[in-house]
Order: sequence, then structure tokens, then C-alpha cells
Amino acid sequence: MNYREASLKKHGEWKGKIETVCRVPVDSREALSLAYTPGVAEPCMAIHIDVEKSFELTRRWNTVPVITDGTAVLGLGDIGPEAGMPVMEGKCALFKAFGGVDAYPICISSKDTEDIIKTIKLMAGSFGGINLEDISAPRCFEIETRLKEELDIPVFHDDQHGTAIVSAAALLNALKLADKKIGEIKLVINGAGAAGIAISKFLLKLGVKNIVMCDLKGVICKGNDWLNSAQKEVAEVTNLQRLKGTLADAMKGADVFIGVSGPHCVTKEMVKSMAAKSILFTCANPVPEIEPTDAKEAGAFIVGTGSSEYPNQINNVLVFPGLFRGALDVRATTVNTEMMIAAAHGIAEYVSDKELSTEHILPFAYDKNAHKAVAEAVAKAAQKTGVAKIK
Amino acid sequence: MNYREASLKKHGEWKGKIETVCRVPVDSREALSLAYTPGVAEPCMAIHIDVEKSFELTRRWNTVPVITDGTAVLGLGDIGPEAGMPVMEGKCALFKAFGGVDAYPICISSKDTEDIIKTIKLMAGSFGGINLEDISAPRCFEIETRLKEELDIPVFHDDQHGTAIVSAAALLNALKLADKKIGEIKLVINGAGAAGIAISKFLLKLGVKNIVMCDLKGVICKGNDWLNSAQKEVAEVTNLQRLKGTLADAMKGADVFIGVSGPHCVTKEMVKSMAAKSILFTCANPVPEIEPTDAKEAGAFIVGTGSSEYPNQINNVLVFPGLFRGALDVRATTVNTEMMIAAAHGIAEYVSDKELSTEHILPFAYDKNAHKAVAEAVAKAAQKTGVAKIK
Repeated sequence: MNYREASLKKHGEWKGKIETVCRVPVDSREALSLAYTPGVAEPCMAIHIDVEKSFELTRRWNTVPVITDGTAVLGLGDIGPEAGMPVMEGKCALFKAFGGVDAYPICISSKDTEDIIKTIKLMAGSFGGINLEDISAPRCFEIETRLKEELDIPVFHDDQHGTAIVSAAALLNALKLADKKIGEIKLVINGAGAAGIAISKFLLKLGVKNIVMCDLKGVICKGNDWLNSAQKEVAEVTNLQRLKGTLADAMKGADVFIGVSGPHCVTKEMVKSMAAKSILFTCANPVPEIEPTDAKEAGAFIVGTGSSEYPNQINNVLVFPGLFRGALDVRATTVNTEMMIAAAHGIAEYVSDKELSTEHILPFAYDKNAHKAVAEAVAKAAQKTGVAKIK
Repeated sequence: MNYREASLKKHGEWKGKIETVCRVPVDSREALSLAYTPGVAEPCMAIHIDVEKSFELTRRWNTVPVITDGTAVLGLGDIGPEAGMPVMEGKCALFKAFGGVDAYPICISSKDTEDIIKTIKLMAGSFGGINLEDISAPRCFEIETRLKEELDIPVFHDDQHGTAIVSAAALLNALKLADKKIGEIKLVINGAGAAGIAISKFLLKLGVKNIVMCDLKGVICKGNDWLNSAQKEVAEVTNLQRLKGTLADAMKGADVFIGVSGPHCVTKEMVKSMAAKSILFTCANPVPEIEPTDAKEAGAFIVGTGSSEYPNQINNVLVFPGLFRGALDVRATTVNTEMMIAAAHGIAEYVSDKELSTEHILPFAYDKNAHKAVAEAVAKAAQKTGVAKIK
């Protein structure tokens, strides 16, 4: 079955994957007097006196926009703001189905960092948190950093941290099966954009010591003159042996390959050159770095992809609904590293030892209890680290 | 019963008057492949090739944000962006209940005209139309005018035109009962803000010839040195007899009083000074210009208010759901005068001669068929004037 053709047809039939519904009675004069004028003046004045009440008297407590500028949609690249909307709407559908979060898809018709920051800041009072999506690197780093500094609600760039968290969860369970220690592995990340750099930074925090990052120009090494500021920063703490060369060179002897790059850039030969019990997460979307069947034929021990067409889907849908659910439930003012680490462990530990296998290293995305486990772990971490307004 | 206290309690229980729901299956790997990756890449690319497809493949065709800066909320004034949200949410609930429109409440934390225009322009690609709400005059005029010029989706400032349309509909039916001709009446409007000026302009288009506008400083007359630019403009075409003085002076001998001002600024004496079969629409919210019982005691023939607590509620809830439903249904690229006039007649004519009485000049806001009638009238007018993409 061709999912892309079928999906186009379905989207034409659905005419929208989410909708807004009315939660209150408005079918009589009295009902209107309560939900609307004149009654509504009172909750307005209560919020005017104490803005925190907007989390109690409106839907703000449960509302998160999924915001893109359309510059890095899936692996399709800069396709424009409106063209990113089917993905944003899909995320909103998943936010509700798996996290109970009311999400709105919003695209911004500007690629200017300041425009995007200002637009989001100016409407942040409408929302309980902000989910950034498919904004290309390196702009996404500044946008997220600035918004985190300037807003007092959780801000989360899913392509960076969602991908990092779910990759980390997959890695924890894959290493368990391969019987390798996280501090001893050699790990290669291909694709030094938003996701790759975020995965790298997050895995260092989780205990990986030897990470080599690659991009289209080859291995990223301190001193390369073609690095952008985010890549320069990560070059300080990765590839400590100052290896140079191509992706093929980097993959020789590697225990783990994580791809957040483009279609079919990994060959069977490259997989064969990896260490025994090799682990590959080929997350390029919609076409992976190497077809899972090819990787397996070349001797890979565990293969995960970004797609739901294969086993081991390494998809941030396992992260964002539960993470925001947890953050919103305790009125967290930010998403900090501890909350993200809690989410990674929450996902990994949800798969019992009995269920864990090379074809099943992560929970199924449509398992609602998995998202609940993530939410609980994140809420606890927020409370423990003092960023939760609800103790 | 005290609606305001009861409403505050209800808002605390509701915790939001609208919510987002998921319209598609996401409960299996295959379902996720269609609604999300990898399938979703195809509708994205279809929109990338032809942005108009965003109205077919996402919810855009049915989605309208209700946007405020919180500067003119009900009659409460500048209470701040978040404090305006209960009203915006209420409007969204009514948009859905009466027009089937998916509306999002959005508040913008800036009073700067350029900030507001830019923020809305940058996110307009997400929506099928834009509803502006509770933005104070004179900024609201420029904001709406500029957005109408620069966007190719319907933009509608409800406080101006919603109020104008419903007031016009009420006037048409009230004059029928009073047996007065629209071209012969003397009409006083108190409150020369967004709503008052829009009512004045709209009624001139409908055939009223003698309009006198008043504001806190008294009668508005060409040459007054305290007028803002919008008031100066309207002073050119109203009060042609160049009357000066107070509201009380203006009301002497008037057939109709329309108030969009503040609480209790009209006295019984002022009502007594009006012409026989006087008509008063006291729309200040939440407290009217004069209590309806007082106006009736002073001899008023017909009294309407902005509140659902009394008969003849003159509320723009009769306008915006049907108007946007009609505009969205035919993919109108704007809201023009013809569409607004069609809406006014649609509302007025929905009340049959048999039903029409001094206590019932307008349809009930919760009568769904009334909104349907408005939608049909507006859609036809859009098609007739060539602004509908769906012919």
C-alpha cells in the first residue's frame, strides 16, 4: 500500500484532522448570560486583577499551539508555512488523542528570527505552553532559547528535544539488549541540524562519552571552517579524538548510528564496517538513511526508523503529548533538562523486560498508558526541580 | 439571580468553554501512517505546489481566530490581553454552536498598531478568516483597513460591523412597528468609538439621513477641535444641521437612540423629550445606558439592549457566526458592504410579521435557523459581488 497517495486522499476527505467544539450550553437566554454577556464580565475582571487566574477560568491551562515557519518540514525542507500545516494539524490530533492537550496549528509567514520570536511572544498569553515545530537550524536554537528566557510557560522545540528524548529512550533499551554500557560506546550522529545537535547534547548528559557528528561535508571536527555557531559549540564536546573524513570513516567500528539527515546516505558496506551488535536509528523522514531490510541484511542487530511502517518507530509522538501533559498538569514554568531526562527514562522503562526485543525497543505510539507514564515522570521532575506552580 | 457571580463560578467549573478534538483515527500503526508520517508528506507537497489546497487538505477552510489586544473588552475598557480571553472564548463557543465555525481565542500582548497588524498578518496563512474583537478606537480602524488590504481572506472587526449590522436589523424591524420611514427619522448615536462610528456609517448606507453622534464631550459637529481622525471623517456626513450641545440636546425630538457608550448616561427626562413612538437601543455592556424598565416608564415604544437578560437583545452574536459561515462556505476573499447589508436584511426578515412585536424585533440568538438564514444571504451576496472563490 502506498501511504502517501492514500494519505492525500484521506486528507481530502477529512478536510481537517482536528476541530474545535463548544463545551458549554448556549441554547437559552440564561445560558448565554452565563457563558457570554453579561456574566462573562466577572471572570474577565478576576483575570484583570490576577492574570494567573487565566489558567483557571479559561482553557489556557490545557492549550498549546504547534507553531512552524515551514522551513524544515519532515525531511521535505523549506516548503512554506501553509504547506507545513498538515504536519502541524497531525501533531495537534496526536496531542489530543495521546495527551489530552488542546493544540492549535499555527504557521508563521516569515523566516526572520526576530519576527518569529516577537509573533510568538505577543500571543503567548493565550496559551499554557508553546510547541515549536519544523523550524530550520540554526534559527531554531535562538528562537527557542530566547522564548525560554522571555516567557514563563513551557517552550519546547520538538524537533530538537522530542527527537533527542525518544532517541535516548530507544538507545537505553537497545544497549540493554546488546549488553553494552552507555559510557563505553562509540556513537555516530549524521545530520548536524536541529535534531542532531540536540540528540548529541542530550546523550552527553545521559552518559555517552564518544560521539562523532557528521554532516553533508563529513565528520564535524573542532576547527573546521564551515561550522555554524551551534555546530562549533557541539564540536567542543564531541569527536574528542579529532577524527576527520567522511561518514563512512566515522561509522567504522561504531556501536550506534543515529541518522537525522536524508534519504539513503548509508550503504550496506557502512553498516558492515560497524562494531558487532550494531544499532541503527535511521530517522530521516519520509525516506530513511538506509532501508531497514538492507541494514538488517548487512548485519545490523537493532534497527529503528522514524516511520510507523517498520518496527521500532523512533518518533517524537512518544514524547510531546505526555511531556506537555505533565508540564501543564503541574503548571510548570519551563521544560528543563531534568524533565526531559525523566521523559526518556519514563518511555524506556515502560517497555518491560519481558516485552523488550530487537523488534520492540519502544512502546507503541498509540498505547495511551505509555503517554500517561511519561506525563507522570515529567510532572514529578518539574515539581522536584521547583519549576512547578502546582506543588 | 446575579449572572456575574454565577458566571464566575461556572467559568471555574468549566475550565474552558471550548476544546480541540481529534477527528481522525490514530489508534494503530496504519492510522498513524495516514494521519501523520510518512503519509502526511503528500498533502504537504500538494499545498507546497498550490497553496489554495490548504483550504481543502487542512481545517483552514473552517478556522477563524478571535483576536483581541484586550483594550476595549465589553464595556470594561482596557483590562489587558489575558483578561479579555473569557469573552474571546465565549465568542469561539458561539462561533461553533451557531455557525459551525472552528474558532480559536488569541490575545495579543501589545497595543501597538503595527505590532498587531504584523502579528496577525504573519499567522494569517493558518486561517480561513480573521475576526477582530474588542480593540479600542481609533487603532481598530487602521488595523482592520490594513489587514483587509493586505490579506486575501475575510477580515471582520466584530465590534464595528457586527454591532452595526445587528443594530441595523433591529432598526429595520422597529421602524416597521413604529410605521416610520428610514429616510425621515432623526437618529442619535451615543458613543463615538469603534461601534458608534461603524453604526453611523452603515446606517447612512442603509438610507438613514439625519444622524447626530455624541461622545463624552457632547454632540459631534464638524469643526470640533477634539475629534480624532475617525470622528472627523464621520462629522462630514452626520449632523448636517451642525447642532451643538449635549446628549440631552441631541435627544430632543429624536425618533431613535442608539447607545454604545457607558452605564446610565441616559435619564428618563431625556427619553421623555424624544419624538412619539421612540426607539432606544441601549447596548452598553454589561450595564446599559438606561435600565429598560426606566426607559419604558418614560414612554419608550421599543427598547433593546446588549444583554440577554432583557427582551430584544441587540447582540452581534446574531451576526458573526452566520456571516463567517457564509463567507467561508463560498471561500470569500473579503467581507464587503453588500455582504453586510445582506446579513442585516437576513436577520430582520427572519422575524415574520406574525412574530414581530415591540418585545420581539430580532430572532433569538440561540435559534440556529436564524444563523443559517444569515449565512445563506451572505454567501449569495459574496457570489453576486464576485468576491467568492466558490461560484
